[in-house]
Amino acid sequence: MLQGFPESMQKLIDQFSKFPGIGKKTAQRLAFFILKWSNEEAKKTAEAIIQIKKNVRFCSICNNLSDTEICHICNDSIRDKKIICVVEQPNDISSVEKMGSYKGLYHVLLGALSPLEGIGPKDIKIIDLINRVKNNDIREIIIATNSDTEGEATALYITKVFKPIDIKVSRLASGMPVGANIEYADQATLQKAFDGRVSIV
Amino acid sequence: MLQGFPESMQKLIDQFSKFPGIGKKTAQRLAFFILKWSNEEAKKTAEAIIQIKKNVRFCSICNNLSDTEICHICNDSIRDKKIICVVEQPNDISSVEKMGSYKGLYHVLLGALSPLEGIGPKDIKIIDLINRVKNNDIREIIIATNSDTEGEATALYITKVFKPIDIKVSRLASGMPVGANIEYADQATLQKAFDGRVSIV
Repeated sequence: MLQGFPESMQKLIDQFSKFPGIGKKTAQRLAFFILKWSNEEAKKTAEAIIQIKKNVRFCSICNNLSDTEICHICNDSIRDKKIICVVEQPNDISSVEKMGSYKGLYHVLLGALSPLEGIGPKDIKIIDLINRVKNNDIREIIIATNSDTEGEATALYITKVFKPIDIKVSRLASGMPVGANIEYADQATLQKAFDGRVSIV
Repeated sequence: MLQGFPESMQKLIDQFSKFPGIGKKTAQRLAFFILKWSNEEAKKTAEAIIQIKKNVRFCSICNNLSDTEICHICNDSIRDKKIICVVEQPNDISSVEKMGSYKGLYHVLLGALSPLEGIGPKDIKIIDLINRVKNNDIREIIIATNSDTEGEATALYITKVFKPIDIKVSRLASGMPVGANIEYADQATLQKAFDGRVSIV
């Protein structure tokens, strides 16, 4: 009320202000925008918020986000069920899917190893991954954890776990991003690019 | 579905993407954020969206946004009912209210004169303003339209309308913003500041 907004408007502004990266001014702008919307559009948005909380859960096989017990990727009969791409978070899947060429399955760890934060192998879905590999005919695991300390530690741990088993384990290549300028590359990336250099002749 | 999101999540992302200044990536981030929220918070947000569309209307006196027939400012018995501050949009009221020192009433024009866009005096709430002044004991009108071409044209028009009537009409001062650097001031602002210079001795 203090700033002259009606109560129901202030309530919506308060809710929007709780979103990450949305300040008071942006929250006001969004509220004004909804005010100009049709009732139908507003209803659709409210409904979508309710539905996402009601329907979305983790896939019981790969921990991807899903509206159903088993996600559409695990359910897809066309996909290659012998390859598993291991990622840290469900949204990492959308990045790999956008690439368009990967046709295997996924396994979401829902985290990464971090001794500093006290996150050990039991705190992320590594045991589930071991069981999946044990109980299914998996031929390759592609580790697509992040390239930061936690992601590298997790990749190393998974590699060690599967060493005794006859299974191909690979890690995404490290190096220069496409389009990047050598001049501006950080030393760690440049070192990785040198170490992983590929002979071309 | 294409990018690996469950359907109910994609729906919410699509709705958020329709907001001004919210791109696909931000919409995804917001959807993930809501996913981590408590059910209660999500429900509160959905409810707030429905309520704002249901409750918020224009005050029948001043065209401010309001949950009630007459807004809380027009209803406030403490405020000085002899001064009207004329603004273009309802959100301009919140800016003046934040200043904290103005205790009069408002009149929202819901637009500004713009011959280029074909917006004339009949398209904005100027006649309502004339009637308010006629039927009430108003002593001063403070014109707080924007400092752009449309706002200035509107201010000029209102000034002319009330010239025959014995009423004080004032316009917000133009000049240098507080804290601004002369070096970076645009010529029009600097000219206004010179024209409106105030003698200090």
